[in-house]
Amino acid sequence: MPRWEPDGAERLETAAFDLFAEQGFDRTTVAEVAERAGLTPRTFFNHFADKREVLFGLSAEFRQRVVRGIAECPAAVPPLDAAVHALQGALDTMFEHRRAAVARRFAIVEATPELRERELGKNADLADAVEAALRARGHDPDTARFAADAASAVQRRAMQEWTGTADGPPLRELVVAGLHALRAAVAGGADAARPDTAAERGPTAAR
Amino acid sequence: MPRWEPDGAERLETAAFDLFAEQGFDRTTVAEVAERAGLTPRTFFNHFADKREVLFGLSAEFRQRVVRGIAECPAAVPPLDAAVHALQGALDTMFEHRRAAVARRFAIVEATPELRERELGKNADLADAVEAALRARGHDPDTARFAADAASAVQRRAMQEWTGTADGPPLRELVVAGLHALRAAVAGGADAARPDTAAERGPTAAR
Repeated sequence: MPRWEPDGAERLETAAFDLFAEQGFDRTTVAEVAERAGLTPRTFFNHFADKREVLFGLSAEFRQRVVRGIAECPAAVPPLDAAVHALQGALDTMFEHRRAAVARRFAIVEATPELRERELGKNADLADAVEAALRARGHDPDTARFAADAASAVQRRAMQEWTGTADGPPLRELVVAGLHALRAAVAGGADAARPDTAAERGPTAAR
Repeated sequence: MPRWEPDGAERLETAAFDLFAEQGFDRTTVAEVAERAGLTPRTFFNHFADKREVLFGLSAEFRQRVVRGIAECPAAVPPLDAAVHALQGALDTMFEHRRAAVARRFAIVEATPELRERELGKNADLADAVEAALRARGHDPDTARFAADAASAVQRRAMQEWTGTADGPPLRELVVAGLHALRAAVAGGADAARPDTAAERGPTAAR
């Protein structure tokens, strides 16, 4: 951001992630986060509704971007491809440039059962929004539901791999690789362990 | 159950579901549940660790049945088919004969955000267990992960449809229909809205 003083929201996020990692999410107060950032609690509340918002504040914008991306996708693009394309756009814009912060957030969420369940709720909300956006494009309910769930699975797997290394491939490439792996897995087990089975079933599984 | 006196666990479950539906999960105490069932709190705690356990007490057994079903499935069965077959067996044994109770439970869980997130956590635990069981069968990590997520999507969709009617098709049939719909959706959008697209992409999507 081209601003002459450090961004308050970013300083608060860094301070919050430090404290959540050091002493746990539950034992960290907003006052401590503000103090660590060299700011006041009042400034904290100008940026975030509560301390959980530091971790989940981007989910609504992400969801909106994905929904818009699906609506803007040409009608000829199949539903799962449209959903994945929209996810790639949102991931590029919102996450690709800040892998380290996203990885820290991911580790904090995984370490706290309450936060993990909240994350699962946000993921489910996103999948529901993708389903609705696909139905709005004219797809039948089963197709919209399953394409949304499949896109969600691809995204979660890509995020997991991407946050696991500091310099691996970009998110959008991991998403493409995941989409191919998902299609192979779902079409009838075309994985390395069972090439014979894949050959038997490949031609009929897609019907 | 061929017992000469009504089963305590079932009476407690019925009483708990009545009260959760009438006044909400949060505002219901164990003492109230026991009283409604004509039993003591002590008897309640002989059957359940807490009131949430009335709603989630079966998840560990369900998970174990699914994992065992995957391990026992012949090696030639592809991973998603093995996972779906194991799910069908567990659904038959544990849920098929009690649709009304399962539907009531489903409605209570959906009505309370905290319970919905807990349910999502249990679903994620089940998918993780399915993934591990598929890896133990020799499937690669991507295939195991995506087959587990796909099976989970099929199960959730089938449960949703099954609990939505009092006398619709049995769960195992809804699971089969869901598996076909998922494969069509994932292979490239072979839904009613886009038959042309399906015809174009069908042959290559499974490769």
